[in-house]
Parts: sequence; C-alpha cells; structure tokens
Amino acid sequence: MAKQERAVRTRRAVIEAAAHVIGTRGYQAATMAEIIQRAGVTKGAVYFHFTSKDALARAVIKEQTEPFLPPVSESRLQDAIDFTHQVAQGLRTDPLLQAGTRIAVETTFSDDPLVPYQAWTDIITNLFSEARENGELLPAVVPERAAEFFVSAYMGVQLFSRAATDRADLPERVTTLWRHTLPGLASPGALSHLDPHGRSIEIAV
Amino acid sequence: MAKQERAVRTRRAVIEAAAHVIGTRGYQAATMAEIIQRAGVTKGAVYFHFTSKDALARAVIKEQTEPFLPPVSESRLQDAIDFTHQVAQGLRTDPLLQAGTRIAVETTFSDDPLVPYQAWTDIITNLFSEARENGELLPAVVPERAAEFFVSAYMGVQLFSRAATDRADLPERVTTLWRHTLPGLASPGALSHLDPHGRSIEIAV
Repeated sequence: MAKQERAVRTRRAVIEAAAHVIGTRGYQAATMAEIIQRAGVTKGAVYFHFTSKDALARAVIKEQTEPFLPPVSESRLQDAIDFTHQVAQGLRTDPLLQAGTRIAVETTFSDDPLVPYQAWTDIITNLFSEARENGELLPAVVPERAAEFFVSAYMGVQLFSRAATDRADLPERVTTLWRHTLPGLASPGALSHLDPHGRSIEIAV
Repeated sequence: MAKQERAVRTRRAVIEAAAHVIGTRGYQAATMAEIIQRAGVTKGAVYFHFTSKDALARAVIKEQTEPFLPPVSESRLQDAIDFTHQVAQGLRTDPLLQAGTRIAVETTFSDDPLVPYQAWTDIITNLFSEARENGELLPAVVPERAAEFFVSAYMGVQLFSRAATDRADLPERVTTLWRHTLPGLASPGALSHLDPHGRSIEIAV
C-alpha cells in the first residue's frame, strides 16, 4: 500500500473512531485516548492528522454531509423534502451524522460558531433559492432566512425523536415538520403537488 | 430560622448551583464536587436532598418552568406566542432554563426519556387545545402533535441562536419560527389578528 493511501485510510479510521466515541459518550466526555484506542492506530498517527479533539470534531462535521446529495427533479421544494428524509434515514445509523449532532449541541467553536450547521444551511438555501426561481415559494419567503429556520427546527425535531424513540420515529416527525412548515413556504400552486413524506429514494449511504 | 425553612433554602441553593455548573460546563462535564462547592453547603446537606447528578437534573427540569405562566387573553394562540417570547427572554439570563436545555440535549432519562420536554409540551398542548375550542386552529391540526412539533422546533431554534449569538437574536428567531408555522396552524380568520412578535408583556422572572 502506498504511503499516501495508508495515510488516507488512517485518517478515515480516526474520524470514524472519533464519530463512534463522540456519538456514544457525548463530545465533552469523549477523550483522545479512547478515540486512539478505538481507531487501532498509534497515538503518533492520530496526532499527525489531528492535533486536538476540536480538530477531530471539525473533521467529523466536514465529512458528515459528503454522502448526501439532494436529488434533482422539476420541483426543488420536493427535492428539499426528499433530501431531509434521506438525512433522517442516515441519522438512524450513520455514526458521523450522530456525532455531528452531538458536536453541534454540546460544544461551541468560538471562531466560527455556526460551523456545525453551515453545510446543511447552504444546501437548503440553494434548494430554496432554486425553488424561488421556479415560482414554488410564497413571495414573503427569504431563502437564506427560511433555510436557517428550517435547519434549526430540524435539529430540534431530531433531538426530540432521539429522546422519544432513539430516532425510530424520525421519518414520521420529519413529515410532520414539513406539514407544519410548507403552508408558510410554498406557493398555493406548488403546495398541492408536494408530498411531505418524500418520494421513495435510493439512500446514498 | 426554622429547620424546615433552612432545608428549603439549602435545597434551592443546591439546585441553583447545579443549574450554574451544568449551564456552564455541560451536563456530562459537571461534577457533584463542583456543584457542592458552588452551593456553599456541606456534602451531607447536598446528598440529603439529591442522591445523584441525575436527581439534580430532574429537579432543575421540574423547577425551570415554574416562573412561567402563559398570559390569558381572548386569543389562546396569541397567548402561546407571547409565552414563547417570555421563555426566550428567560433563556437569555435564567440559569435554570439554560441548564434545562443542556440536560435535554446531553443526557437521556431511560425511564422517562421525554421528561425534559414534558412540561413545555403540556403547556403548549393546553394552549393549542383551547385555541381549537376558540376556532383559532386549522381543522387538520391535532393540538398534542402540533405542540410536540412546536416544542421540538423551538428547542432547535434556541440552540441555533445560542451558537450564533449566545441567544441575543433569540426573540427575532422565535418571531421567525411563528411566521413560518402560523400559516400551518391558524385558521385564516385568526391568522390576520396574530402578532408573531408577541405583545409586550411583563416578564415573570
């Protein structure tokens, strides 16, 4: 195995170990020692890639969104709905997503406090902006503000679902989230065609 | 000071110390030792009232809602809006509320996992149920389900606001939450009379 390839694998193993430990214990209680042990690599190899738990948390956050691509159809609002259902499925099993939510709510990044939310907000902002161009949004909706609201509400919904059922009922609660928010987002013409359950989709993870 | 009164004061001092330490450090990182030190009472006095951090967390959750009473006016939906703005003000300064949100998102109560959300959900369910009797809700809205959705979305909104501005912009984000959810909650006749900013109110804390 080439040196470069080995480094990539080690880095990934460390990120996955960090996600597992943070997702299980919480961010504050997770220790570098336990992450190193779980990754099954040397302490030196871990610190070569990540100098601190903070650096690892940022890597988890950065990589958690990568497997998720919104579908592309004629309705960008339906694509947003489907995307959030994809993420809901992911949250039930994907250690990176589970760790990402714990990092978002248990720590602060003083240099860039919205970093745990940013990639999600950007994806939803793009979808809402394109929905606006399609005439799918109500005139008063501002895509960026609406996306920030939606991402924050989604965070709360998945935390509630985690507490209630360890996220078994998350798809249903995401449907309820859309049922409650679409009337304030979608133009009447678009609203009648949207399915808050999401269309059945291939999960990318 | 009578023995009974002293016990009540000690108990309160311990709960306030717990709220401060949990609100500052997070639930997992908070220790009984630091709570005892901050309360300025003996270890024995603390353990007389609370046998564990878990017991303290439950007391914080139980007492956090007590200063908050929804206003009572002709519109129960407006009362719900005003109540959530009251709580938003409280979240900016009240250690019990700040600790309550950290407990809700950082730990689980396996015997009763929704305990951190329950009192809030009950208050909003009652307000929505009375709004339904007043004809203020859309026919499809189920008060209990809508209240669970609203409380979970509110949790996410205040977490996002904590990250973004240490809750300085929370009142504005609560207004945005209502702007986005009222069209899916309120009957058209009620909607035109509601103010998502909340009426100016006396803060009970």
